[in-house]
Amino acid sequence: MTKRFALTPGEPAGIGPDLCLLLAREAQPHALVAVASKDLLRSRAEALGLSIQLVEVSPGHWPSLPVAAGCLYVWDTPLGRAAHAGQLDMANAAYVLETLSRAGRGCLDRSFDGMITAPVHKGIINEAGIPFSGHTEFLAELTGTEQVVMMLATRGLRVALVTTHLPLKEVAAAITVERLQRVIRILQRDLVGKFGIARPRILVCGLNPHAGEGGHLGREEIDIIEPTLQTLRHEGIDLVGPLPADTLFTPKHLEHCDAVLAMYHDQGLPVLKYKGFGAAVNVTLGLPIVRTSVDHGTALDLAGTGRIDTGSLQVALETAYQMAGDRTLAGA
Amino acid sequence: MTKRFALTPGEPAGIGPDLCLLLAREAQPHALVAVASKDLLRSRAEALGLSIQLVEVSPGHWPSLPVAAGCLYVWDTPLGRAAHAGQLDMANAAYVLETLSRAGRGCLDRSFDGMITAPVHKGIINEAGIPFSGHTEFLAELTGTEQVVMMLATRGLRVALVTTHLPLKEVAAAITVERLQRVIRILQRDLVGKFGIARPRILVCGLNPHAGEGGHLGREEIDIIEPTLQTLRHEGIDLVGPLPADTLFTPKHLEHCDAVLAMYHDQGLPVLKYKGFGAAVNVTLGLPIVRTSVDHGTALDLAGTGRIDTGSLQVALETAYQMAGDRTLAGA
Repeated sequence: MTKRFALTPGEPAGIGPDLCLLLAREAQPHALVAVASKDLLRSRAEALGLSIQLVEVSPGHWPSLPVAAGCLYVWDTPLGRAAHAGQLDMANAAYVLETLSRAGRGCLDRSFDGMITAPVHKGIINEAGIPFSGHTEFLAELTGTEQVVMMLATRGLRVALVTTHLPLKEVAAAITVERLQRVIRILQRDLVGKFGIARPRILVCGLNPHAGEGGHLGREEIDIIEPTLQTLRHEGIDLVGPLPADTLFTPKHLEHCDAVLAMYHDQGLPVLKYKGFGAAVNVTLGLPIVRTSVDHGTALDLAGTGRIDTGSLQVALETAYQMAGDRTLAGA
Repeated sequence: MTKRFALTPGEPAGIGPDLCLLLAREAQPHALVAVASKDLLRSRAEALGLSIQLVEVSPGHWPSLPVAAGCLYVWDTPLGRAAHAGQLDMANAAYVLETLSRAGRGCLDRSFDGMITAPVHKGIINEAGIPFSGHTEFLAELTGTEQVVMMLATRGLRVALVTTHLPLKEVAAAITVERLQRVIRILQRDLVGKFGIARPRILVCGLNPHAGEGGHLGREEIDIIEPTLQTLRHEGIDLVGPLPADTLFTPKHLEHCDAVLAMYHDQGLPVLKYKGFGAAVNVTLGLPIVRTSVDHGTALDLAGTGRIDTGSLQVALETAYQMAGDRTLAGA
């Protein structure tokens, strides 16, 4: 059955609009609605030499069928000021957030089955005087969600994180029984409910090198992680670990798992991005809506050039379709 | 020119002896001397159904030519008690250390051009009442070396570590100007002197996620890492960074670098071992001798079965040959 998804191109001076237009050259299996300035898309298409027909849609007039190749549905959302590729402009900060609000609220009221986000530029939004720490936090607040879980995925590997954007020296103290329980329950629930995996197997990294080597290299595995995994196993969650992170990412382990849980950002993401180079997707778990994102930044210097790769956006789309119930696609 | 190398099979109940015997089926370009019990090698060869001729050598009677396929030079070093595959025995702890001493001292007195080590079992050595924290520390002490640097390598990627086997919560405090300077100077010196790279380019990871994101996610990059790199650049060292670890390990960066310096164990090794699965080598930099090692453990359950892969040992050998001046091989 055809579903409908919101696509936010994010920062108008970055490559987000370009990605959406490049993508529109080919047909999609679901109705994809760009929540963006029509003027922006039109002028960027010209800059790229692309002939994409923009089909305007709006609340009450949603499309029920996928659009043809060469066309893109647009829910027109006006810019603060005309955008130029590569040039950040505080006057468009509110525009960026408005596109996210429209997409997020549209998911909540079932206008959309999910949303896919291209990169925003945190710095310029904050410079414009609007406190903003990222898509994930923005959508958590919009949807009244207390705890979300960041997961990156590429074909063949999913890595979820217990802690995310935290200075390294604060990581150890942040690994608590309570946080681990919340994160693992969300991960389990969404792997079942959104990815359709009946009984997910989750590999859990230790916090310390060699997973603490029996307490010689740190005690968090013994004092916190092991007992928490044991508790959750009694709830029926299939958890393996804590395992040493440096040997976990090898075929022997990965072949039989549905997700890896890393304790912190740089423990799990270097290998994920190495493996999934150019084709990784960022998924926010725990939200009442489906949300995926590309895994790269705004690449201001490449906006308007066409020298960009839509691989990550393609996987972000496929994964959103999959999470919304389309089981015909691979996703990530 | 033919060189001579010591090969220590390590723990006699593990797969080390098996690896040496499997390797001996094929010819090597240099004279390789197993420092091990001849009885052990003979009985393990029988268990494996291998017909390997053991050629005894000893100080004063070193071989000057490589041995033929199907043969292995052995510097006989008696066991404490007959060893059984898979069964650790405290009676052989002193034997293991004696093989390392012989090989290390043989490198110092130029009997050998380098040494390659198969895995030891730290636990059983300590249980036998001998304080031992690893090959690296043992060889540092034997050679009177104050600071060594651990580097793992596989074809196409080298990763050196600023800190190694430290609980994660102690890592941030261990990243000091002094330690960084010592580690980078050793890395630079050995890439030039042992790997023959005229002007190595070294990529340096940040400590924090996104390399601190301008101070928002930790200040060590600004306060410690950046100024140190700047100082060392003035000494002529080609340093790039600090870079975010999660995007550093991508072709754009790796294609133009000779080594990556990670701040801690699980930041750099998961991706190295993922990329180099089964063919990674552990190199100790900073020693006055050449020493490489396999990157895996004793695998007690696989000893005597033959179901093992010599890939890592092969790369360890090639890398030792390369570090000792043989520029005809790829190494790692």
